[in-house]
Amino acid sequence: MSQEPNDLVYFEDMKLGQEFHTDTYEVTEAEIIEFAKQYDPQIFHTDPIAAKDTFFEGLAASGWLTAALTMRLQILSKMKYAEGTIGLGVDITWPIPTRAGDILCVFNKVTELKELKSRSDRGFLILESETRNQNNQVVQKMITKALILRRKQT
Amino acid sequence: MSQEPNDLVYFEDMKLGQEFHTDTYEVTEAEIIEFAKQYDPQIFHTDPIAAKDTFFEGLAASGWLTAALTMRLQILSKMKYAEGTIGLGVDITWPIPTRAGDILCVFNKVTELKELKSRSDRGFLILESETRNQNNQVVQKMITKALILRRKQT
Repeated sequence: MSQEPNDLVYFEDMKLGQEFHTDTYEVTEAEIIEFAKQYDPQIFHTDPIAAKDTFFEGLAASGWLTAALTMRLQILSKMKYAEGTIGLGVDITWPIPTRAGDILCVFNKVTELKELKSRSDRGFLILESETRNQNNQVVQKMITKALILRRKQT
Repeated sequence: MSQEPNDLVYFEDMKLGQEFHTDTYEVTEAEIIEFAKQYDPQIFHTDPIAAKDTFFEGLAASGWLTAALTMRLQILSKMKYAEGTIGLGVDITWPIPTRAGDILCVFNKVTELKELKSRSDRGFLILESETRNQNNQVVQKMITKALILRRKQT
């Protein structure tokens, strides 16, 4: 019998096709600028005035901020994976940028579950995620390959 | 004749197979923890002591920090794309984690260049990047699809 709290999720708890979403997070202009100054210093991410004359026609969050906030929402969601998730790789597209004032929410679907011959303690999972803003527009699509813990066999 | 500084790079300046690398960046324990507390709060990213008993056997940077630092290195490198790069999408894998004290450098190769029928002002580029640590171990592989500016036709 597991000694972990009941709300921890293991590989065996996941179902193919299962859908779930996270809480929401409001993105501020200050966070967009602060993140970009450190990690993606381009004027369309750091300068609201100069950004107007660029491809983005206004301040746009770095795609890497959208990705980082997506991770934050996943980790702080009600779905708590036992011992966390080990991300092996991701495919990301950013159809439109995140903007200041956007309220983001991540919608997930389990599209593959596989037991591993190489190791018995973790299972392999593919998750398709859409990060959407308050207008239901998709700001990020991501396919994640990850390992999650299996229940110990008794 | 272009009025931009000579060192700005346009689509026409890129060559298939071209290789270039960035400067280096030293990752500190403090940055690993600070980033993870905000964007990836899992104990193997936030707690050096507790991390010892996890999959990672010690503090590991969030893959999203490795990705963000890779972007920082690219943007601050000598290759300055005119008006910046518009990232359409990326495929990322993290073969091993970035650790505190790692000195990262990004090695790039241009693997596709394509003119766009849909727009004449930008060209399409695929860049394969390896982010390596001071021991030449690859902490991140990334394939980036991006748009970069073309020189104005006169």
